[in-house]
Amino acid sequence: MNVSFFRELIEQIVDRGRNLTQLSLQGTERAGRIAELSRMLMSRRGESSGVALAQRILTTYERLDDEGKLAFFTVLAEEFAPDADAVRTAAERYLEEPSAAGLDALSRATEPPRQEFFRRLNLAPEGTSAMVAMRADLLRFLPENPEFRAVDDDLVHLFGSWFNRGFLVLRRIDWSSPANILEKIIQYEAVHQIQGWDDLKRRLDPRDRRCFAFFHPSLVDEPLIFVEVALTHEIPGSIHALLNPVEHDAGDEPTTAVFYSISNCQKGLARISFGNFLIKQVVTDLAREMPSLKTFVTLSPVPGFMRWLDRERHADEPAVLNAEEVETLARLDEPGWQEDEEAVRALKPLVSELAAHYFLKEKRPNGQPLDPVARFHLGNGARLERINWLGDTSGRGLREAAGLMVNYLYELKDIEKNHEAYAEQGKVVASGAVQKLVRSERSKRALVAADG
Amino acid sequence: MNVSFFRELIEQIVDRGRNLTQLSLQGTERAGRIAELSRMLMSRRGESSGVALAQRILTTYERLDDEGKLAFFTVLAEEFAPDADAVRTAAERYLEEPSAAGLDALSRATEPPRQEFFRRLNLAPEGTSAMVAMRADLLRFLPENPEFRAVDDDLVHLFGSWFNRGFLVLRRIDWSSPANILEKIIQYEAVHQIQGWDDLKRRLDPRDRRCFAFFHPSLVDEPLIFVEVALTHEIPGSIHALLNPVEHDAGDEPTTAVFYSISNCQKGLARISFGNFLIKQVVTDLAREMPSLKTFVTLSPVPGFMRWLDRERHADEPAVLNAEEVETLARLDEPGWQEDEEAVRALKPLVSELAAHYFLKEKRPNGQPLDPVARFHLGNGARLERINWLGDTSGRGLREAAGLMVNYLYELKDIEKNHEAYAEQGKVVASGAVQKLVRSERSKRALVAADG
Amino acid sequence: MNVSFFRELIEQIVDRGRNLTQLSLQGTERAGRIAELSRMLMSRRGESSGVALAQRILTTYERLDDEGKLAFFTVLAEEFAPDADAVRTAAERYLEEPSAAGLDALSRATEPPRQEFFRRLNLAPEGTSAMVAMRADLLRFLPENPEFRAVDDDLVHLFGSWFNRGFLVLRRIDWSSPANILEKIIQYEAVHQIQGWDDLKRRLDPRDRRCFAFFHPSLVDEPLIFVEVALTHEIPGSIHALLNPVEHDAGDEPTTAVFYSISNCQKGLARISFGNFLIKQVVTDLAREMPSLKTFVTLSPVPGFMRWLDRERHADEPAVLNAEEVETLARLDEPGWQEDEEAVRALKPLVSELAAHYFLKEKRPNGQPLDPVARFHLGNGARLERINWLGDTSGRGLREAAGLMVNYLYELKDIEKNHEAYAEQGKVVASGAVQKLVRSERSKRALVAADG
Amino acid sequence: MNVSFFRELIEQIVDRGRNLTQLSLQGTERAGRIAELSRMLMSRRGESSGVALAQRILTTYERLDDEGKLAFFTVLAEEFAPDADAVRTAAERYLEEPSAAGLDALSRATEPPRQEFFRRLNLAPEGTSAMVAMRADLLRFLPENPEFRAVDDDLVHLFGSWFNRGFLVLRRIDWSSPANILEKIIQYEAVHQIQGWDDLKRRLDPRDRRCFAFFHPSLVDEPLIFVEVALTHEIPGSIHALLNPVEHDAGDEPTTAVFYSISNCQKGLARISFGNFLIKQVVTDLAREMPSLKTFVTLSPVPGFMRWLDRERHADEPAVLNAEEVETLARLDEPGWQEDEEAVRALKPLVSELAAHYFLKEKRPNGQPLDPVARFHLGNGARLERINWLGDTSGRGLREAAGLMVNYLYELKDIEKNHEAYAEQGKVVASGAVQKLVRSERSKRALVAADG
Repeated sequence: MNVSFFRELIEQIVDRGRNLTQLSLQGTERAGRIAELSRMLMSRRGESSGVALAQRILTTYERLDDEGKLAFFTVLAEEFAPDADAVRTAAERYLEEPSAAGLDALSRATEPPRQEFFRRLNLAPEGTSAMVAMRADLLRFLPENPEFRAVDDDLVHLFGSWFNRGFLVLRRIDWSSPANILEKIIQYEAVHQIQGWDDLKRRLDPRDRRCFAFFHPSLVDEPLIFVEVALTHEIPGSIHALLNPVEHDAGDEPTTAVFYSISNCQKGLARISFGNFLIKQVVTDLAREMPSLKTFVTLSPVPGFMRWLDRERHADEPAVLNAEEVETLARLDEPGWQEDEEAVRALKPLVSELAAHYFLKEKRPNGQPLDPVARFHLGNGARLERINWLGDTSGRGLREAAGLMVNYLYELKDIEKNHEAYAEQGKVVASGAVQKLVRSERSKRALVAADG
Repeated sequence: MNVSFFRELIEQIVDRGRNLTQLSLQGTERAGRIAELSRMLMSRRGESSGVALAQRILTTYERLDDEGKLAFFTVLAEEFAPDADAVRTAAERYLEEPSAAGLDALSRATEPPRQEFFRRLNLAPEGTSAMVAMRADLLRFLPENPEFRAVDDDLVHLFGSWFNRGFLVLRRIDWSSPANILEKIIQYEAVHQIQGWDDLKRRLDPRDRRCFAFFHPSLVDEPLIFVEVALTHEIPGSIHALLNPVEHDAGDEPTTAVFYSISNCQKGLARISFGNFLIKQVVTDLAREMPSLKTFVTLSPVPGFMRWLDRERHADEPAVLNAEEVETLARLDEPGWQEDEEAVRALKPLVSELAAHYFLKEKRPNGQPLDPVARFHLGNGARLERINWLGDTSGRGLREAAGLMVNYLYELKDIEKNHEAYAEQGKVVASGAVQKLVRSERSKRALVAADG
Repeated sequence: MNVSFFRELIEQIVDRGRNLTQLSLQGTERAGRIAELSRMLMSRRGESSGVALAQRILTTYERLDDEGKLAFFTVLAEEFAPDADAVRTAAERYLEEPSAAGLDALSRATEPPRQEFFRRLNLAPEGTSAMVAMRADLLRFLPENPEFRAVDDDLVHLFGSWFNRGFLVLRRIDWSSPANILEKIIQYEAVHQIQGWDDLKRRLDPRDRRCFAFFHPSLVDEPLIFVEVALTHEIPGSIHALLNPVEHDAGDEPTTAVFYSISNCQKGLARISFGNFLIKQVVTDLAREMPSLKTFVTLSPVPGFMRWLDRERHADEPAVLNAEEVETLARLDEPGWQEDEEAVRALKPLVSELAAHYFLKEKRPNGQPLDPVARFHLGNGARLERINWLGDTSGRGLREAAGLMVNYLYELKDIEKNHEAYAEQGKVVASGAVQKLVRSERSKRALVAADG
Repeated sequence: MNVSFFRELIEQIVDRGRNLTQLSLQGTERAGRIAELSRMLMSRRGESSGVALAQRILTTYERLDDEGKLAFFTVLAEEFAPDADAVRTAAERYLEEPSAAGLDALSRATEPPRQEFFRRLNLAPEGTSAMVAMRADLLRFLPENPEFRAVDDDLVHLFGSWFNRGFLVLRRIDWSSPANILEKIIQYEAVHQIQGWDDLKRRLDPRDRRCFAFFHPSLVDEPLIFVEVALTHEIPGSIHALLNPVEHDAGDEPTTAVFYSISNCQKGLARISFGNFLIKQVVTDLAREMPSLKTFVTLSPVPGFMRWLDRERHADEPAVLNAEEVETLARLDEPGWQEDEEAVRALKPLVSELAAHYFLKEKRPNGQPLDPVARFHLGNGARLERINWLGDTSGRGLREAAGLMVNYLYELKDIEKNHEAYAEQGKVVASGAVQKLVRSERSKRALVAADG
């Protein structure tokens, strides 16, 4: 069959978005079709008609149901993997005579053809965007289909190269941004839900708010990650004060930039890390824009605290709690405890101290702290600055962290030192105030428990 | 020494472009400095201060003299190569037990750390552009320093990924384009030199000319490759008619788009191929914009013809020429032969026929035609359409091709078929007219010569 | 005191937006100040420092309370009016000897200095926008202060020149428009209120909706007028169907463009007419974009119908209603009549017929129809196409028009003819269907009443 | 004849640029046609089909020869003038009873219908641009056709309103500006001719040059006026040093901004003044961008000096020269005198002193200085700072000003005071150095001569 690919290309561009009835194959037919097209893309024909083939693969993929997608990923995992024989031969040759050419041959043999497949797939108009969506599917299947792990690794490798920070563009988000982008900000905000357009407008108020996002040239109108910043006069301890509308006096200039929400937008870009670069770039830009800003700090949740504490509380033999403490902490199970003065009086010192312990002493097997948000900011070189009692009394805040919030401080001159201490010795850099909260007898008890 | 990288970052941005006297180290000092910074970028510190370090490496690199650059590339070639021990161990383990994990480990071990180094280097503002310039240097050194080949391979690998066609943006170049871009068009035109701004304006005349270029989002104002197109009513045989100003009558719509010049702009992107995509995209776009266009054709030089013919003519035993022909062809050595009617009468049939033979019968060891321009267009799926006598009588045209020019035809419905025939069987697809020029006895003679 | 106006200019630009406490004069002081600045602007100093003076006048004006503004407009009305003596002299001279020079002098003498004042005021950055806001104030004061009429006439004259259709830019409004513009669309929609952002998104759905607005280069992000269009397959009779979300089938292409809402955005531009140009431009653009569109029609309210009918119903001697009809029509006063089948059966024929009479027979003293929306569309050359029973059963629809809506048809080939018939003979061009509704005995009765 | 104007509109837009053969009427026919179309535009039809009619008038106008254009302007001058009877009646009524309404009526009667005609003409796409070109024609005819003066006044009135400084946009011109704009800069430079693109690039060198232009939103890609600025370390005395390429040392920041060329671009906008605003805006912007700039000064020609001096020299009884001086000045007639040391020694003190006299003492009947460039800068509030000997030794510089150039200083804090002194008392504000050059006996002699 002799196909005129140009005519096809033109037609496809015209057809884009229409309901192509001629393509309404059954699921299995379509899965077979996409496998065939994929093989074609990797063949001779892919060299001359790559753009059109890539376009058709992506269009077909969009119409697949889950069964069809699973079949497609299976083809990628099995057919487009490195050739075991070739790898073996190359490895044997290299071991015989370890030359530069042999190394190169070995390296080529181990590179999965999938990578070339994905690079060709990217030839299609808006291919990058479609592949990010494809990976979101893949991640959905991965837990049940661990054999797709290598496929995912290939995508991570490519995306890591394509979404290199050098290609990202920082853009300020404000009330004059396009509505379709703002709509995504509302939708993607993962930390403190945005309650509609009025709330969003409040969060973009140029008088005391900033919002920045990273974009990639190939993902038009699609933020990758964004951060919301409040400009204040002191380090805040509660999210509620921050989110509520306030009176603005045009008085003193702000001294403090508070990063109170960082949200990733693209599921398909999980494991590609932008947050570190985003925060540092925004700190740099804000410091230049507003010389009055001296303090750069987060107001962050503690998502793992109650998970750990509940485990402790309900353990047969709690490692760090004594019986009295367990009893006191039982009040956390009473709804509304945070408004009961007596409960608060009993809980506050104990819970605060336990939080300090949780951050500084409790570790994963690899030596890192338990809390994922802590791992992110400490890994960036920030310092755990303050533990805030009843900083977030929303349902989620109470459920996950007994209402606690914390501040991580980005102290310009210490970031590198902190990062190294954390990365090399697992050291949790914390302010004196936080360190003082830790009680040594509890730490010892924990050590004894761990040894036992 | 504890460095505040934010302050540095800010300072560096401010300092950019200033004459940083404190950095006027001697060549060797600076080479040592950049090696040290490069190691730092690959270390722990590179994780937290990558942007600033990358920036400093690039700034330092710009100030290196050639000796310093050679030292830098030597570090990359030697220090940042795969660890031979690690490769060996991984290869042995894989051969023992060829698991997926083992394959992955082997793949990682063979990937040169250089690739990560270059990815981190790209963190710097305008890093991509600086790295393209860096590769231009590297290519300059390569002939004398074959040990840098692996470094170059790594850059090619990365650039192939970063400059994937999916990330390229096609832009029309016209008289309202920025002058700094047009200046580069003048400067980069490699086929038919542009004689200043008036000539350029003529070549951008919207009535019968088009010019398109690929750009990359990270190389602002830097075209990667561009093509010049003339809109005509027939397939042209001579470049001179095309380049001279003509009377425009607003009459019939053009039927033919002539691609008469394609020029790569970035030395540092050699071996990253854009031309194929550019031509096909422009054909697609023009066909949509102007339905009257039916023929898409090039007017191309034949840069290798005289090189081959001279070799033949001066061989002790010419493979395809007889003594009489050698004598006739000697007239090509007389300056001004192209204006001597008798010489032309004698040469025209012979040279034309030899050109057809050159294109269709003479091959490189790998079965491809000798002519590099022919390899490019035939590889794209075009057809050798016509050989034009005295198509280019400029000094260069006469010297390289005895004044010949040829047309390659991009026939929409045949491109894929042509490409496959060429790629799989080395077949040179040519029009009947060209094929008829070939004389079988000469081909036989050539075969005999080759066998002998 | 000698003021450096450059320094001032710079300071003012810096100061813009700050709370200039030093300017918190009392109302009267400030009114005196602005009068003084205004005189200065018209003096010698206005020639060299016009930009800075204009800026200060506008800044001061913004801080005036209503009392201050009244004082300011009084100065404009009285001091900056034409000099009566000069007019008299020029008039006398012209009558003596009516030369071209004399005419010119007379023309100059009659032009109020206010016009030059306003032209100079426009020198200030964002001056045009401030003057539009100023006129909105003026229009508020006008009913109580008829002496400001001449000031308003001058602004109308200038705005008519500045907002000439040739300077307006048509822009499509869609979901990727900036949120601050969309917010204004929500706010300015005057015909069928937009219920928040979801409703707006529905009204901008690219599948079957369009929205276009006129902008002026000097009023950034400020639409002047916008029109909402629905793309349908037939002429709609009810606004509710149009505003509700529908199932989209990607089937037939739309044949009908329905202009269902036109809203002016700027109070300060009242009497500057854009609607005529907007509709015709949008018809032209849509016809080119979608050749399937054959019918361009409105779905319009009838805001004056019940006002007229109520007058009739409650007249001592109704001109066109008999007693029985008056009784039937009394049911319109019963809340919920539109859901009472019997009431509807009784009212529908009578009310529809009366509506036809209202449109075709009832006239203002100048011969134009009573209904303002009818005057607008008929004046544009449209035809009254259909009267729709229960087209708008909202509270306002029932209150103003007994639930009626009408369609005005923009038939391309008849617009000019219709416009002339309307403009010269006051003829209401209507479809046969509407004309047939009219009962001649009622028209005669009306004539008798009028004569009586 | 029933015309479908929409269809027409669409067709015209499609047709734009094509060779409309159906319109190739003979000159007189076409002149008749345009008159008819113009009357139509002012009639009822103009209200509903204004856009299409305006478009046709402008298209027809473009094809008129000079004879046709003269006929067209004659129609405008005669037919579209105020109605003399109506003016008389309104004048009489006003004199009888000078009410506000009467004044308004009189004002309307004296406004030429041409103004409404031109406003309607502006409805056409790109109408403003076409009307500016139309006025350039008109100005060409004016000297021979003084009866068109009133037509020109109407255009000046309208353009003054439309090109109000508030609507102008200041844009920096640099090497990344579109080539079609830069081409116009080369073409319009009226003071020191630009010698091609290399010279232009030199004049836009961001290291020590700036160029700014005013644009109007309706004249896309058409600068109205532009100014070229050099950034230096002292007030320059010679244009040659300024125009030649120099070595840049990245050393000290510039202290002086030199406005060495201001050129109007649009003949059709003569008498609409932008220069004053341009200079002041650029001073303001540069002062903010580069705080190191302390001095803002011009380097200006003296175009009227030799005209005055020649008149003096060849007068029967020179007013200010004695016989000896006349003889000395005769050396100015010897070609190459500026390179003859002895001639220079003789001429320099005399000519410099005469120049100071020319600026400070010689006046037009209205009390303003003779030199047009002096009138412009002094009127803006600048001060005559320095007279530079042999500042411009080009042919033109010697011919017009004996090689002299002068600097006008824009001293921020004095501009307003200087402007008032100049405007009210005709005072030429000059530096002490210039004032000292003036010899009182010559001034007395001039006074005596004037009295005589």
